[in-house]
Amino acid sequence: MRYPNGIVRNNIKNTSYDNRGMTLEDDLNTTNDYYLLNNIACIHKKPTPIQVVKVKYFKKSVIIYEAFFKKPSTTDYNGVYKGKYIDFEAKETNLNYFPLSNLNAHQLKHLNTIIDMGGISFIIVSFKKYKEIYLLETSHILFFVNSNKKSIPYEYFKNHGFLINLNYMPRIDYLKIVDYILEGERYEVKN
Amino acid sequence: MRYPNGIVRNNIKNTSYDNRGMTLEDDLNTTNDYYLLNNIACIHKKPTPIQVVKVKYFKKSVIIYEAFFKKPSTTDYNGVYKGKYIDFEAKETNLNYFPLSNLNAHQLKHLNTIIDMGGISFIIVSFKKYKEIYLLETSHILFFVNSNKKSIPYEYFKNHGFLINLNYMPRIDYLKIVDYILEGERYEVKN
Repeated sequence: MRYPNGIVRNNIKNTSYDNRGMTLEDDLNTTNDYYLLNNIACIHKKPTPIQVVKVKYFKKSVIIYEAFFKKPSTTDYNGVYKGKYIDFEAKETNLNYFPLSNLNAHQLKHLNTIIDMGGISFIIVSFKKYKEIYLLETSHILFFVNSNKKSIPYEYFKNHGFLINLNYMPRIDYLKIVDYILEGERYEVKN
Repeated sequence: MRYPNGIVRNNIKNTSYDNRGMTLEDDLNTTNDYYLLNNIACIHKKPTPIQVVKVKYFKKSVIIYEAFFKKPSTTDYNGVYKGKYIDFEAKETNLNYFPLSNLNAHQLKHLNTIIDMGGISFIIVSFKKYKEIYLLETSHILFFVNSNKKSIPYEYFKNHGFLINLNYMPRIDYLKIVDYILEGERYEVKN
């Protein structure tokens, strides 16, 4: 793809997260749109759970005029890739660690359940300070939770997570890492 | 499980949908709770998508005081069973046919995409008139859509769908039918 200034951006791969007012959520939605459009995967962000209290009925519409945000009991993203069930939560942090309080007890249990059911689950964390995005598998999160830790250090992500290279399109190509995880699974089964 | 009148209901299997004020959605939620509790599958109903317009911030809470229901772009239920991605929509009808207008264009496309991505997708339709619940695979729905039909007759469900026997627990054991579908897939791969 050619840009007005003549720079071909298509093959530029960089690991920095150059913030152009886009949030992690925006980038993931763009990525998922790309996956869907190119028949790679069907992964969607779930709607935010809302408790509707009062509604008004009109001839052709309904207006909600009292409602509350509910605590999510599952993760934000799920879908299908190569027949496999994929499930993850995405979070941004300005700190040099990931506070486990960013995931509620239901979400942690949910991520674990997905593994038990043969699915693939993980978290994607954007460390804004380092302009880096990591994918960390659920087993690592549970290790920290079970050790009664309150957070996971950035260094741990560096050593045990997967750095996701940022591209022009798809922006956050996390399925490349899922491929790697799936390869590992096949390897384990073989042996 | 024993009941006050001494009847053991646990093994009673019947195909009639004895309405006790429970909706199909209630019964599916109960079924999914059972699956989750017994480590069989992790399948959830997605929250209803709502467009939030106005909110008020308080010290410890946020109140939404203007919002609208959005048209769903995917199906209501999805999750994981035996590592596989499962996706379906559930509908009730009083008619002796299933009006295809019950599924919007996005939902039909979504059901088809799931198949393309190697997942399992279907609809569960409760024919209240006959007190019967059927599971019909997406391929059949697409056949009717592509033939420009406006509905699928009850008789078609009888001949090409799977009747789901209603039990005490799990109430609507649709995964028994998914097992059958998965068996078929394995058979196709072998041959």
